[in-house]
Amino acid sequence: MPFQIGLLAFPGVQQLDLTAPYEVFVGVPGAEVHLVAASLAPVRSATGLILTPTTTFADCPALDVLCVPGGVGVNALMVDDTALAFVRRQAEGARYVTSVCTGAMVLGAAGLLHGVRATTHWAAHDLLSAFGAIPVRERVVRDGRFVTGGGVTAGLDFALTLAAELVGRERAEAIQLGHEYAPAPPFDAGTPETASPAVLAAARARIAPSRAERERIVAALTGVAVTRMEWE
Amino acid sequence: MPFQIGLLAFPGVQQLDLTAPYEVFVGVPGAEVHLVAASLAPVRSATGLILTPTTTFADCPALDVLCVPGGVGVNALMVDDTALAFVRRQAEGARYVTSVCTGAMVLGAAGLLHGVRATTHWAAHDLLSAFGAIPVRERVVRDGRFVTGGGVTAGLDFALTLAAELVGRERAEAIQLGHEYAPAPPFDAGTPETASPAVLAAARARIAPSRAERERIVAALTGVAVTRMEWE
Repeated sequence: MPFQIGLLAFPGVQQLDLTAPYEVFVGVPGAEVHLVAASLAPVRSATGLILTPTTTFADCPALDVLCVPGGVGVNALMVDDTALAFVRRQAEGARYVTSVCTGAMVLGAAGLLHGVRATTHWAAHDLLSAFGAIPVRERVVRDGRFVTGGGVTAGLDFALTLAAELVGRERAEAIQLGHEYAPAPPFDAGTPETASPAVLAAARARIAPSRAERERIVAALTGVAVTRMEWE
Repeated sequence: MPFQIGLLAFPGVQQLDLTAPYEVFVGVPGAEVHLVAASLAPVRSATGLILTPTTTFADCPALDVLCVPGGVGVNALMVDDTALAFVRRQAEGARYVTSVCTGAMVLGAAGLLHGVRATTHWAAHDLLSAFGAIPVRERVVRDGRFVTGGGVTAGLDFALTLAAELVGRERAEAIQLGHEYAPAPPFDAGTPETASPAVLAAARARIAPSRAERERIVAALTGVAVTRMEWE
């Protein structure tokens, strides 16, 4: 029987949050990887790339791995009852309930992260506790059947970690080699701690509108007011 | 005037070769990023993900950056006269002629790599010299206006390097921070040199059919017979 992996596709998803784990998951022997959405209509990602769902909330098989990617579209997803109902329903039976980047906000909004150690994109990290989660500043955080990854590109490290869990380290390493994943970033600006103050300020400014909206949504959902980003 | 960046989309493209640089390039101020294909019909990537082109060979504006991703579909592209004509035509005027992964095979097949220092996926690296290129085992190789990246995930390092070239290091670092690109692979199997013999053998076995076909195509195009992979 195939192993069912479902990645949520939605308008405003950060496509790399989805496409990076996708490329790892399809290398898991026996895995069937689905892009799940409300309908089969193509969805426009946060940066414009069009993604085409392969199944719907209604038709999706019971998932072994549920994975929610992030992106600016998470704001709408956090208050989308249909999507949240799908996430809750699949989470009940899934072996692994997972997220990349701000996908963790959706797991939180679905009420799944109470008492769970979790991570998310650095610019949303301090919002995790509003959902009762225990924020952990690591690239990949595992707590029982919950596995969460940090921002965007952490999806690669997340997916390889999960692949090893699913089919063993040697197979996961073969996927890593196939994708020549021996990263060599030209700069060391990938975290708020290593970026220069000017770079951090520029990144914060770009994120500010989505962050402000997210604060309002989290407050409305949880009653917890978070009004300053951790790195402000 | 916008800065035009075009990524080739084709059946059998390794979607992450395309989607990773895409996500970096859209962060370049003033950039318009195109997915260019023979027609606007959605194309199926090597691992099944559907990509939707945004423009065609005929309608694509003159590109400042031409980028050819790789994948098993490169085999067909190397003998696709329409695609090669597009690549040659755009390469004439482009400020940067670039590739990720085995996209370099297409630049080679288009006759663009004579005497050019270049890299590609490790499993195709020894084929570069058949096209008159000078193979360099680095993650990102720049030779004048030619910038080539290694296998799949090297597209991130490639695109950040190019972004810095286009709009300066500080802006490229802000993109890196936005994507939280501080990689932490759970294993160290990303290159043939660091992978275990068993992992290398498994990866080679998976690639073997595509590699054998590629050897035949390269021999037919160049007259150079390469019959063993460098890591055999």
